[in-house]
Amino acid sequence: MPKIVDRDARRAELAGALWRVVYRDGAAAATVRSVAAEAGWSPGALRHYFTTQTELLAFAMEHVIDQATARFEARTWTGPVPEVVRQMLEEVLPLDRQRAREAEVWLLLAARTRTDPAAGTLMRRADDGVRRASDLAVRALAAHGSVAPGRDPALETARLHALLDGLTLHALLHPDLMPPERARAVLADHLDGLRHERPD
Amino acid sequence: MPKIVDRDARRAELAGALWRVVYRDGAAAATVRSVAAEAGWSPGALRHYFTTQTELLAFAMEHVIDQATARFEARTWTGPVPEVVRQMLEEVLPLDRQRAREAEVWLLLAARTRTDPAAGTLMRRADDGVRRASDLAVRALAAHGSVAPGRDPALETARLHALLDGLTLHALLHPDLMPPERARAVLADHLDGLRHERPD
Repeated sequence: MPKIVDRDARRAELAGALWRVVYRDGAAAATVRSVAAEAGWSPGALRHYFTTQTELLAFAMEHVIDQATARFEARTWTGPVPEVVRQMLEEVLPLDRQRAREAEVWLLLAARTRTDPAAGTLMRRADDGVRRASDLAVRALAAHGSVAPGRDPALETARLHALLDGLTLHALLHPDLMPPERARAVLADHLDGLRHERPD
Repeated sequence: MPKIVDRDARRAELAGALWRVVYRDGAAAATVRSVAAEAGWSPGALRHYFTTQTELLAFAMEHVIDQATARFEARTWTGPVPEVVRQMLEEVLPLDRQRAREAEVWLLLAARTRTDPAAGTLMRRADDGVRRASDLAVRALAAHGSVAPGRDPALETARLHALLDGLTLHALLHPDLMPPERARAVLADHLDGLRHERPD
């Protein structure tokens, strides 16, 4: 089935061009026109694959989800559970330039979910990934005895997920107020705090 | 100075039309064309005031900041400090339709800060407001004895602010997973948790 192989190869080529634009000029700069130019295609040829910027961003987000999943699965985690959990969650924060660009794509898609169902579907998948990571973190800490017994795991998952997304937003929009070391400190502090019983 | 009065009156008229569009059709629907139609103006006449959708959103955000400030100042807060703090912070969460629309404007502007300096300036003002509210909350709780003495107030302010923005995002994007009562419960739980000493 050479046509399918062709299409996959072309998508990989486009993904490369798309991310070169995103890394160089930011996610907002990734338009049908600029990505076509980067790939050495005509805008018309690119429109065979993508007609809107949202479709490009959705494609970029898919790539982020795949990359992040592969990164998680390839990495060997060693050390005490609380330490591993902390490192795992740091992976979803925009603590370096690559992840900041990924977070830009996420934010642009988030802003489009109201008007574009394709953006909504991808956002859902991306957010479900971070929610599952939060859930896994709370469970792992609980199994390790690092979550006070009176806590509601579902509430703690929701709280951790909200914190991670808030930190992502602030690291992206206000890097002067939320540099990487601050985001790390806030996350570490939050995870430590799970060890305490709730107040009466 | 009749010209200035005129301009103010016209801006108020436009703000009314703008927010009618936002409430009815969502923030993304507020374009120069749709707002002009709602106000009964020609798009050309509206462009005398606003040329891009970002400028419209920035104007809408200014209105949100003014409204929220007025709402805070007009309200009489009574009750125990932790209760007042909780209610005050609930004001910044999108727990009803009006505040959800305001949060939509915020999210759309957030996504544009990279490409539009006007969006960046307004976002900064809006976010500074929520950061100040978080700071005030931590200080008020500390003065009341509801923050454990070993806590770092700046870190707790950053953590609370990130949580509030994360909850805002989730209430907006995933209302099935983060309905108003859940957002309230997560916030209440977070504030209660400040009473505990940090772990060793």
